[in-house]
Amino acid sequence: MATVVVDVMPKPEILDPQGKAVLGALPRLGFSGVTDIRQGKRFELTVDGEVTDEVLEEVRRMAETLLSNPVIEDFEVHVEQHTVAQVAGQVLAEQGR
Amino acid sequence: MATVVVDVMPKPEILDPQGKAVLGALPRLGFSGVTDIRQGKRFELTVDGEVTDEVLEEVRRMAETLLSNPVIEDFEVHVEQHTVAQVAGQVLAEQGR
Repeated sequence: MATVVVDVMPKPEILDPQGKAVLGALPRLGFSGVTDIRQGKRFELTVDGEVTDEVLEEVRRMAETLLSNPVIEDFEVHVEQHTVAQVAGQVLAEQGR
Repeated sequence: MATVVVDVMPKPEILDPQGKAVLGALPRLGFSGVTDIRQGKRFELTVDGEVTDEVLEEVRRMAETLLSNPVIEDFEVHVEQHTVAQVAGQVLAEQGR
């Protein structure tokens, strides 16, 4: 079972009110050093069988037609060996929790 | 200017109605081969100066307190050389658009 990730972000020229809200909250929480935040979406797709170029091309078509709005969003497709949940589980295991 | 990415995903045991809705729409649009979809969030943070271990630790604290809900979500922090917008721009350039 392979995981194909589709990252969808608002285009640079598009306003991002969610990102701006998060950015505005940082100093109130005592954080500094971050000059901009953009908020987008991440899709983790579980694919049956091997991830071939044809599968990636199909996922790209899904991203264009269903997962993103190409007028206001950019997207990027790539294969990842581990999901976020798996990585987070590893970190907790290393910390002995 | 470096980009630090925070990926936030619903924990595996948490229902993900958005992901399920997208998964249900795929066959209606003629797509097949995907057995599961989880939908989460992606944050692109622009950081002032170099990304040191201290900066990554600070971003991890931001992810824990502001960007994610640790009760229902896992997160992962990493540095990326290119934003989604930059990658998408490269792809379009290669296609000669």
